[in-house]
Amino acid sequence: MGEDPIPPTIEWRDGAVRMIDQRLLPGRLVMLDATTVDELCAAISDLAVRGAPALGVAGAMGIALAATTGVPLDEAAGRLLATRPTAVNLAWGVRQALEAVDPVAEARRLAADDVARNRRLGAHGADLVPESGRVYTHCNAGALACAGYGTALGVVRAAAEQGRHPSVWVGETRPVLQGARLTAWELDRLGVPATLVADVMAASLMAGGEVDCVIVGADRIAANGDVANKVGTYGLAVLARHHGLPFYVAAPVSTVDLDCRSGAGIPIERRPDEEVVGLAGRRIAPAGTAVENRAFDVTPAALISAIVTDEGVAFPPLAESLAHLCR
Amino acid sequence: MGEDPIPPTIEWRDGAVRMIDQRLLPGRLVMLDATTVDELCAAISDLAVRGAPALGVAGAMGIALAATTGVPLDEAAGRLLATRPTAVNLAWGVRQALEAVDPVAEARRLAADDVARNRRLGAHGADLVPESGRVYTHCNAGALACAGYGTALGVVRAAAEQGRHPSVWVGETRPVLQGARLTAWELDRLGVPATLVADVMAASLMAGGEVDCVIVGADRIAANGDVANKVGTYGLAVLARHHGLPFYVAAPVSTVDLDCRSGAGIPIERRPDEEVVGLAGRRIAPAGTAVENRAFDVTPAALISAIVTDEGVAFPPLAESLAHLCR
Repeated sequence: MGEDPIPPTIEWRDGAVRMIDQRLLPGRLVMLDATTVDELCAAISDLAVRGAPALGVAGAMGIALAATTGVPLDEAAGRLLATRPTAVNLAWGVRQALEAVDPVAEARRLAADDVARNRRLGAHGADLVPESGRVYTHCNAGALACAGYGTALGVVRAAAEQGRHPSVWVGETRPVLQGARLTAWELDRLGVPATLVADVMAASLMAGGEVDCVIVGADRIAANGDVANKVGTYGLAVLARHHGLPFYVAAPVSTVDLDCRSGAGIPIERRPDEEVVGLAGRRIAPAGTAVENRAFDVTPAALISAIVTDEGVAFPPLAESLAHLCR
Repeated sequence: MGEDPIPPTIEWRDGAVRMIDQRLLPGRLVMLDATTVDELCAAISDLAVRGAPALGVAGAMGIALAATTGVPLDEAAGRLLATRPTAVNLAWGVRQALEAVDPVAEARRLAADDVARNRRLGAHGADLVPESGRVYTHCNAGALACAGYGTALGVVRAAAEQGRHPSVWVGETRPVLQGARLTAWELDRLGVPATLVADVMAASLMAGGEVDCVIVGADRIAANGDVANKVGTYGLAVLARHHGLPFYVAAPVSTVDLDCRSGAGIPIERRPDEEVVGLAGRRIAPAGTAVENRAFDVTPAALISAIVTDEGVAFPPLAESLAHLCR
């Protein structure tokens, strides 16, 4: 398979959590070491590391850091869980490490396991991408959102590895621009043809017959198949339905929260106004402008064509197929 | 009525075209004087002045500048028309001035007339805004897009003047951020409550029951009622339909192009990649990233609840009602 063109997003190295500092991409590829629970919590809150599967690994590594630095584990767990409320993987990773005899070994195992699971997920989903298929994606559900390989981009990557020649429309994903900064960077490294667009151009591309399918990641999937993901995902699902295009979600089964009956039960994180009104130190709106900045939205199961997981592909009715895959 | 809190967007002053330099808003309110046709063409191309009705006035003033500086009028007309292909008002304004005995007097008359027409448009449309209505708007169709008062924001302004207490969700409107920079600035000056959002949040607001109607401007309206407007407008129309919300377009009858049978005949301007990959002077995507940057999209008549003009409100079937209003 050759060397992965994208270094590990997050790994345990010399008693510290080493992460790609995603705030500095695409300009610079710089590693950030967190040596304490506080440093890791700050890195999570400030989006140095982000993406639901990567947050799962980060949660486990946070417990590992607590164990090695003498912080009470339940106190560390509380601080980690308070950083980002929507992605269920964070709580899942924390729980896995808390229940393990050796939190460090468990965190390292989860990171390696995440990459293996994403490769399986990609293999399950590759068939959904037609030959020379033009995929529209939102935010970043690639290697940078995981320990490696990616979920939505893992499907694209697997399709490319199978010789299907996919290309990708990359929605820039305001306000934090994960599409422009991270997804465009990954696809460039992978050699997959990609074209960046402002998010508002998606509808026009669909109307013009220039999109074959939409593939996005997920931060939490309710038992009924409702999906919380980066704000803007729901709008894309409505547009895909209007244009008769398939809308796929790609996420490991650890993103499925069977305790959450529907999307109405998923907490939606609000992020600082500055993400919207400030850019590169420059203010783009008048001082005092009111802002609403929700980081996620909920796409109802009825708009989702399939959910691709590491255990297989869930087709509607999603409540039943997800329950089957999560057994 | 008191002094208008927003100075004239474009006016003839001392033999020059004086414009608000919209590139510098909201940070600074600076006037820009164009004393030659070339200077005016550069100001139009670089979006110092923009918005379909304002471009109509700019087109007429460009012919006035040609007449006073000794440039052949047909040569000036060609250069002006090449700057921005989508807004039909530019060609309309050029033609009005070319056909006039005194191009300067005609250009000044068109500017004054535009404000009067927008006030009538606002009065016609105000009834469409419910009491305490929450309006979602895109881009800037306010005073800054016209000689003054505004079209879509003129409707909001008229509703506010009638004591209906509207509030506005302002989509920031990537890539050039006319919503964040211009619409938020205008509404702040007018004292109309406004909340800025990333464009991708519109669907979530609609799903949450937080929007009562969408009102946008137009750059060209075909005879069948199809509307070309800032890219992202079409997606909002699809979302409004999905959520059962009215979708209104506000534009003077000079924006209706009866020679254009449908939206398929409207030329769509492509703008430089730099608008997407550069934000506030900083590069936000990897070097070499491919970009698609269409400035406009077309909303089919079937998704439009009504078109508000200075001559009255056109309801479906729009082909008939527009033909009636444009007689």
